[in-house]
Amino acid sequence: MTRYAAIEAGGTKFRVAVTEDREIIGDTTIPTTTPDETLGASIDFISANGPVAAAGIAFFGPLDLQVGSPTYGSMTATPKPHWSDVPVLDRVRDALGVPAEIDVDVGGAALGEWTWGAAKGLSHFVYLTIGTGVGGGLFIDGRVHHGMGHPEMGHIVLERVAGDEYAGHCPFHGACLEGMAAGPAIADRWGAPGKELAARDEVWDLEATYLAQALRSFTYVVAPQRILLGGGVMQRPGLLGLVRVKLAEQLAGYATSPIRTGTLDDYVVAPRFGQDAGLIGAVALAMRAASTTTT
Amino acid sequence: MTRYAAIEAGGTKFRVAVTEDREIIGDTTIPTTTPDETLGASIDFISANGPVAAAGIAFFGPLDLQVGSPTYGSMTATPKPHWSDVPVLDRVRDALGVPAEIDVDVGGAALGEWTWGAAKGLSHFVYLTIGTGVGGGLFIDGRVHHGMGHPEMGHIVLERVAGDEYAGHCPFHGACLEGMAAGPAIADRWGAPGKELAARDEVWDLEATYLAQALRSFTYVVAPQRILLGGGVMQRPGLLGLVRVKLAEQLAGYATSPIRTGTLDDYVVAPRFGQDAGLIGAVALAMRAASTTTT
Repeated sequence: MTRYAAIEAGGTKFRVAVTEDREIIGDTTIPTTTPDETLGASIDFISANGPVAAAGIAFFGPLDLQVGSPTYGSMTATPKPHWSDVPVLDRVRDALGVPAEIDVDVGGAALGEWTWGAAKGLSHFVYLTIGTGVGGGLFIDGRVHHGMGHPEMGHIVLERVAGDEYAGHCPFHGACLEGMAAGPAIADRWGAPGKELAARDEVWDLEATYLAQALRSFTYVVAPQRILLGGGVMQRPGLLGLVRVKLAEQLAGYATSPIRTGTLDDYVVAPRFGQDAGLIGAVALAMRAASTTTT
Repeated sequence: MTRYAAIEAGGTKFRVAVTEDREIIGDTTIPTTTPDETLGASIDFISANGPVAAAGIAFFGPLDLQVGSPTYGSMTATPKPHWSDVPVLDRVRDALGVPAEIDVDVGGAALGEWTWGAAKGLSHFVYLTIGTGVGGGLFIDGRVHHGMGHPEMGHIVLERVAGDEYAGHCPFHGACLEGMAAGPAIADRWGAPGKELAARDEVWDLEATYLAQALRSFTYVVAPQRILLGGGVMQRPGLLGLVRVKLAEQLAGYATSPIRTGTLDDYVVAPRFGQDAGLIGAVALAMRAASTTTT
């Protein structure tokens, strides 16, 4: 059994674990304050539970992930105080003295699903998470596609449903995917958080319609083998099935692969790892760091 | 100098050439009738102007391009009479007795632009052509991304502009990108073909707005290094610049790379090869076939 360090870093808290292979043998939660405090406490926890063979970090963005960049693995400009330009990957690697790898949170989650979960063995898929924001990862040929900068799938164009007059919640685009379908948009539009709206079918019908629009555009842009839908909003029972129904309507029979016809049960699926997606993804990143460094 | 065969196959005509490296030394046009007639005449022309080292084929879709498929390089089901399931790649390769490669037309054009043109040396870009339809190619890490089936970028979701009541021209989706912005949609909406609408600014303002919506979604889904805009509709003087202006408005400052801020002059560009894009792409496919087979 090999020990790994896994860091799932969010804007409000870090979750840090030491694992034996994929099994968590110790974990802790640390508030996100300054880099010195939060990264320092994370490293202390790992050191106390180590030694580890490698570390993986699934981090809130934006990160410099351009291969060959001198600041690869650093945060770029962020409105979050203290965190702009922090060399996260270098700090963790240097402090622990082991190989380490980093990705944005949704990228780590996608890697975890590809390694052990609902996207195991696929060559290309989309991972979308719908929560306080909407984030997406495009996985192609064994790695997360970062592009120039990185994708921001939550900000694609949607078509307003007739009769819907909600302006949208995105400060940049108003009625983009995130502006219309993320948790805060649901609460703002209907005047109550999603969990208090469970019995109102019109809420979830509209939500599924907008999500299906997004999935239609992803389908036509990248023709993925599968789309994984995670995040807090997707915990609503029945929503996943409703998205499939609406997507079939949206595609309107215009699909270039049999997997995108019929019920779409194998095309639009839930991730395997729910609340643990980021942490499991970080473990996958750690294992990748160990294997690419020892060859 | 090495001779290659290049076939650009469209639904109404084939253009067939023999080249010395990239220089066309002989070419002909053949009407698209039956596979026996049209492929037969293509092969006869090449044989009469050969011998060639390899052949490249940029073909109207849909094609089976799944790596490892027993019917790789064949047409799949198509409404075009006689052409469903025709093993295009095998027929050309067997008849000429040389290595051959095939891609969909826009995929070939993207490869040509990457090899010699406006996308030279990039690791990922989008090639979009706006003509009688809207087709797109996503190029990643040295090859065209085919996905499961293949992308159909013309069918993504757009947001209806306030006051625009045109229903859209797509038989499947109505107001998708192709349904709102392809040549036939322009003619149908305004009651005249695009070339008769040159002086009407409102036509091109709306056209640029819808194209910019599409480019915004491509940007946020794949974060490309560049987007190439070709096809007959883009021949309208000034339209490319107008698309850049509208895209900057659409992105609203929310861009994760410097190339997507400012004037966008290096981000949204014209392809180098206009009417020859498909044929030049076929040459690039032929050279690839020659180089991958001789190693």
